[in-house]
Amino acid sequence: MSLHVDDLLTGHRPSRAGAYRLLQYAVLLVGLAAMAAVTMRGLQPGTRTWLHLCLWACLAFFAAQLVIKVWPRGGAVGQTNYLFTGPGLIDTLAVLPIPIALLAGVPADTAWLLGSLWLLKLAAVLPGLSLLGRVIALEARPLGSVLVIFLIVLVLGSVALHVAEREVQPERFGSLPQSLWWAVTTLTTTGYGDAVPITFAGRLVAGIVMICGLGVFGLWAGILANGFAAEHRRRDFVRNWNLVARVPFLRELDPTAVIELTRMLRRIDLAERTVVVRRGRPGDCMYFIAEGEVEVQVEPQPVRLGAGAFFGEIALLEGAPRTATVITTAPSTLLILEVSDFRAFTAMHPDLALAVEKAAASRAGIKKSSAATNDQSDA
Amino acid sequence: MSLHVDDLLTGHRPSRAGAYRLLQYAVLLVGLAAMAAVTMRGLQPGTRTWLHLCLWACLAFFAAQLVIKVWPRGGAVGQTNYLFTGPGLIDTLAVLPIPIALLAGVPADTAWLLGSLWLLKLAAVLPGLSLLGRVIALEARPLGSVLVIFLIVLVLGSVALHVAEREVQPERFGSLPQSLWWAVTTLTTTGYGDAVPITFAGRLVAGIVMICGLGVFGLWAGILANGFAAEHRRRDFVRNWNLVARVPFLRELDPTAVIELTRMLRRIDLAERTVVVRRGRPGDCMYFIAEGEVEVQVEPQPVRLGAGAFFGEIALLEGAPRTATVITTAPSTLLILEVSDFRAFTAMHPDLALAVEKAAASRAGIKKSSAATNDQSDA
Amino acid sequence: MSLHVDDLLTGHRPSRAGAYRLLQYAVLLVGLAAMAAVTMRGLQPGTRTWLHLCLWACLAFFAAQLVIKVWPRGGAVGQTNYLFTGPGLIDTLAVLPIPIALLAGVPADTAWLLGSLWLLKLAAVLPGLSLLGRVIALEARPLGSVLVIFLIVLVLGSVALHVAEREVQPERFGSLPQSLWWAVTTLTTTGYGDAVPITFAGRLVAGIVMICGLGVFGLWAGILANGFAAEHRRRDFVRNWNLVARVPFLRELDPTAVIELTRMLRRIDLAERTVVVRRGRPGDCMYFIAEGEVEVQVEPQPVRLGAGAFFGEIALLEGAPRTATVITTAPSTLLILEVSDFRAFTAMHPDLALAVEKAAASRAGIKKSSAATNDQSDA
Amino acid sequence: MSLHVDDLLTGHRPSRAGAYRLLQYAVLLVGLAAMAAVTMRGLQPGTRTWLHLCLWACLAFFAAQLVIKVWPRGGAVGQTNYLFTGPGLIDTLAVLPIPIALLAGVPADTAWLLGSLWLLKLAAVLPGLSLLGRVIALEARPLGSVLVIFLIVLVLGSVALHVAEREVQPERFGSLPQSLWWAVTTLTTTGYGDAVPITFAGRLVAGIVMICGLGVFGLWAGILANGFAAEHRRRDFVRNWNLVARVPFLRELDPTAVIELTRMLRRIDLAERTVVVRRGRPGDCMYFIAEGEVEVQVEPQPVRLGAGAFFGEIALLEGAPRTATVITTAPSTLLILEVSDFRAFTAMHPDLALAVEKAAASRAGIKKSSAATNDQSDA
Repeated sequence: MSLHVDDLLTGHRPSRAGAYRLLQYAVLLVGLAAMAAVTMRGLQPGTRTWLHLCLWACLAFFAAQLVIKVWPRGGAVGQTNYLFTGPGLIDTLAVLPIPIALLAGVPADTAWLLGSLWLLKLAAVLPGLSLLGRVIALEARPLGSVLVIFLIVLVLGSVALHVAEREVQPERFGSLPQSLWWAVTTLTTTGYGDAVPITFAGRLVAGIVMICGLGVFGLWAGILANGFAAEHRRRDFVRNWNLVARVPFLRELDPTAVIELTRMLRRIDLAERTVVVRRGRPGDCMYFIAEGEVEVQVEPQPVRLGAGAFFGEIALLEGAPRTATVITTAPSTLLILEVSDFRAFTAMHPDLALAVEKAAASRAGIKKSSAATNDQSDA
Repeated sequence: MSLHVDDLLTGHRPSRAGAYRLLQYAVLLVGLAAMAAVTMRGLQPGTRTWLHLCLWACLAFFAAQLVIKVWPRGGAVGQTNYLFTGPGLIDTLAVLPIPIALLAGVPADTAWLLGSLWLLKLAAVLPGLSLLGRVIALEARPLGSVLVIFLIVLVLGSVALHVAEREVQPERFGSLPQSLWWAVTTLTTTGYGDAVPITFAGRLVAGIVMICGLGVFGLWAGILANGFAAEHRRRDFVRNWNLVARVPFLRELDPTAVIELTRMLRRIDLAERTVVVRRGRPGDCMYFIAEGEVEVQVEPQPVRLGAGAFFGEIALLEGAPRTATVITTAPSTLLILEVSDFRAFTAMHPDLALAVEKAAASRAGIKKSSAATNDQSDA
Repeated sequence: MSLHVDDLLTGHRPSRAGAYRLLQYAVLLVGLAAMAAVTMRGLQPGTRTWLHLCLWACLAFFAAQLVIKVWPRGGAVGQTNYLFTGPGLIDTLAVLPIPIALLAGVPADTAWLLGSLWLLKLAAVLPGLSLLGRVIALEARPLGSVLVIFLIVLVLGSVALHVAEREVQPERFGSLPQSLWWAVTTLTTTGYGDAVPITFAGRLVAGIVMICGLGVFGLWAGILANGFAAEHRRRDFVRNWNLVARVPFLRELDPTAVIELTRMLRRIDLAERTVVVRRGRPGDCMYFIAEGEVEVQVEPQPVRLGAGAFFGEIALLEGAPRTATVITTAPSTLLILEVSDFRAFTAMHPDLALAVEKAAASRAGIKKSSAATNDQSDA
Repeated sequence: MSLHVDDLLTGHRPSRAGAYRLLQYAVLLVGLAAMAAVTMRGLQPGTRTWLHLCLWACLAFFAAQLVIKVWPRGGAVGQTNYLFTGPGLIDTLAVLPIPIALLAGVPADTAWLLGSLWLLKLAAVLPGLSLLGRVIALEARPLGSVLVIFLIVLVLGSVALHVAEREVQPERFGSLPQSLWWAVTTLTTTGYGDAVPITFAGRLVAGIVMICGLGVFGLWAGILANGFAAEHRRRDFVRNWNLVARVPFLRELDPTAVIELTRMLRRIDLAERTVVVRRGRPGDCMYFIAEGEVEVQVEPQPVRLGAGAFFGEIALLEGAPRTATVITTAPSTLLILEVSDFRAFTAMHPDLALAVEKAAASRAGIKKSSAATNDQSDA
């Protein structure tokens, strides 16, 4: 019982990786802004020079990033392998194309536009693109089907409109490629209005194309959204599974119950000094700490809880408002168990309710004694 | 058995809170209309004066609202805490900015536009915004991923179009910011038509951007809609759970069954004097009264049912049309159990069917005797 | 075994109700077309007269419809009650407004535009509108929340754009109502292009409004689509439940199994002489006949199956292609049990598989004998 | 144990059917491009001749395709039946209309536009259109309801706008058909901007129509997307079921477990020489080979696995990174079992985990001995 929760603390000090990432984003933002500014007309020559300097600085930063990553360390030459992974490719694309284009004689204004590839660095950080790639691979068949339907409507619609309007508006629907352009803008419901049918037949076809557009769009959207949601659910399951394994008393549940619980939990990432629950508010969920640390603001002195601990269970067990404010003291990942899931789960697995109650009771006992600590993790 | 259902009655008299809320909405509407009217050109000076008077009156109303809420009552000074909660912040935003702007020398026409912040009062009443905030917090990862994909398509598309069109339409695609504007209107499928590509390459890129727009939109819509629906389901579960606890004979079911039933029930809020079921219509659901009161129009005299009672079960049990018209006599919240769920539920938990049948039978007995009351709640 | 399936036949003769409905649709179509044509300029006076005659004829038809329905029959005066039901109201709206408007001195061209109310007759026939009404009632809270979010974005966006653009484009964003119009067209991603921001600040706000538009739209679409799908599922369950009760050997299954099966079945309505399954094609489902009649084209003479019978089970049991072509001989409603559901179901409830096999075997035996009949319904 | 996995190999050599299909796509692409090019103005007469030659060649190719398919083979005359199937109809539509139109005196430019029907060949290859047809048949009721709502909003909206705007903009809203055109472009949120309301009443109506457009669109999209997803799931189930039957040790599971597993598995089609898993990467799923062949790159020599085998289970069982890179050596279809499903499944059916572990252990043993083969399929 002498173990303080501070022992459980991980990553409390301001993280260097976070600062480095912020720096990278700042460089990215400055670089893209400079790239956009340099294309504007009527710039002062001085401003122009400064913008170019800025762009060169960004390029140098990204080049340095790449060099650091591929630099042979610990006697290994294998680091060049990095260039052939996804992030390595993106890092290379951020550095090489611009000098190559400049050397190849491309005008500076055009060459610097390749700086837009810097944006791909965002894709390497966020899990979105790899997920999207997987969704597209798994849903290739239905997406392909919808694409074919899209193409058929597109071509038949543009042929029909070409026939209906070529006499009346030869400058807009005179050739099939022009008519195809109209069909694309209409089928996606963008509707620029630069080419608009004026004959009765043309408008009838256009109406049908628009309604088909809604249908095609609906199919497309539904398939992508379903696939994306399913992928995220699977990925979360794997993460939650690993986190659940760290909470000691959950390990004692039987495997089916753990599976079920893992499906119910939802992850939330919080920055430092975020208020998680506020005293006196109604409580509708309890929290398990997967990573990070929180401070429970109770008297006589605040209690710190680290990874593996839980809080917020009193509001669930007693249906009372929150009894204390809880604030993160480090960037934290929490697992949320909603009251609806808690009740559904404990109805079928009363052992969790017992375990939570026991832990809560022992915590209350500890609080009453002067040792303001929480230690399910060594129970 | 002497207990009359009127004893169960809650909130039968026209509610003051409702009237106050309606007044608030009226003031809000008048204020916003005056704010819009005052910006129109060619107003008579007299009209202008009246509109300004109207705006001042609205401001005074909202100021009074705020003062009443923070005024120290019962010797407590703690009421100023209210200013730091969500609704308090909204109330403050509705009152302070306009006088501050006027004092700071902002022209009156511009200062009164801050009255648009009054609209946030709606957000404080409806549960929508807090829900949306929670959905965004929970789905931050996938939404962030989609945002990054959106940004990448946006920037790459606008760079490509800038390159393709800058020679031909320098006034529309001559700089990257102009090209970005085009990309935003196209990627969201808004398509104003103020900037439209005319080269073949430009149109090809535009077509791809539009189709990506559909995909991005689909992902975005799907994630938000799923998250919103899930949040609502959870919130409803908690509400229904509390309401189910008030219906006496449901309490006797075993916990798993209660969980299941809670998931099946759907809430509906009805105004006073609404017809819930009409005699002779086919019946496809039964109702539990969570709050409020209804009147069952049977002979010899109508029966009133209050919170905790149920009705409409005869149509389900016997497959017959509704035997009586039921009308709310107060603003009521009902829980609906559909016939499909009723049958599915009773197939697995025959005890509910028995309980309902017993209660229905005893009620029929009571009806036959002269005591026109329903009293499961004290059974 | 002497019962022929023709005994089970219902509604084999061309239905009068169907013909009457078709007539009503034709009158509706002609009426709406005439209404549209009469508004066109440059019509010959003769054509005009003919169109008006046509409109009067349609009005007379609808008036006759109404009179027939409210005409006292069988000595009852209660028929006027019909006027206060939904369909009665629609019928009245189709007849009365036009003569009233003409008598009130409204010009004929405008009065006849009230003929657009005839279209509501479609709503009375199809179950769509009542469903939609119910969905809106049940999902009123989330839809209301989204509406409030929509309004807040709308007003704040239009105020911001008014401030940003009123100096530069006073004729488009000079007053708040004008700016609101822009905001509506943008937030719904319609984008007419009649009012387009040109300042940097205006375009930034516009971009945010567009992206919010996608979000709002996604929420709206998701809530409506989910609610509509759920409502349809419930309604189908009730219908299927009643139909399942007609299939004799399904009645012997235990209640939980019947519930499950009812959820799996899918209804399909087929016109007369439609090919349901074609000999030699792979079979992926079996069919139960809920209403109508089909003809199984087997040697030596075709077999007719009526309501309560099933077919297509051989392909499922043996994994072989369809052994005979089946054609509807009357408008029929079939219940489809997919192979995936059949296998999932029979894995958990082997009794259905046994029942189907037994029935199939007895049918095969009957086929081999000369009695070309199917008679599970009297087994 | 002497059986080498090469014995299991199917379809390793480059497939002729694939090459033929590619040729067909190439002809299709060339034909459509020529069809589009021939409509452009200002073509050289020489180019024109070449394009026409190209079109004739494509037509000849498709005619040859058709002739080959209907040519009497093996003494059967029944091949003409092919013309009355779906694909036969599409093949006929690709060949006959153009010569018929030319013979009927239609100008060549117009006649060749019928070449757009060639695109339907894509529909015959991909499963999309038949699926879509089935979805539309099954969801006919809700889709019909939404269509009626769409029509009602369309007509009422256009009548209202006609009344509001006919005085002010007679050239745009002067007649009902013109007003209908506006309503279609608005309700689908296309918004060309060729007809825009300018009166206050007109804009109010337009705003309502746009918001209804979002709702209608949402319903439409939701119904189609749900139906399409459900259809795909069913079709996949049937395919997976057949594939699961080929994996020997899965056959020993009890039927309920097989159903459940079949639902969890996801198909993925991979081209030849695709990297399936890469050594050292974290493993989040295991693979069953349904068709094709893969090569596991282990020492001392790579192992080939054919249909019925599985791999990737070590990463799941031990939570370690992938121990070897696996590459397809032929176009393959794999069934993926995600770690989340694997854990959920083995928690309830420990026999699968045992079977996988046993097979994995025996494989490890085989690897340690010099026989670098995998042979669960004859275990």
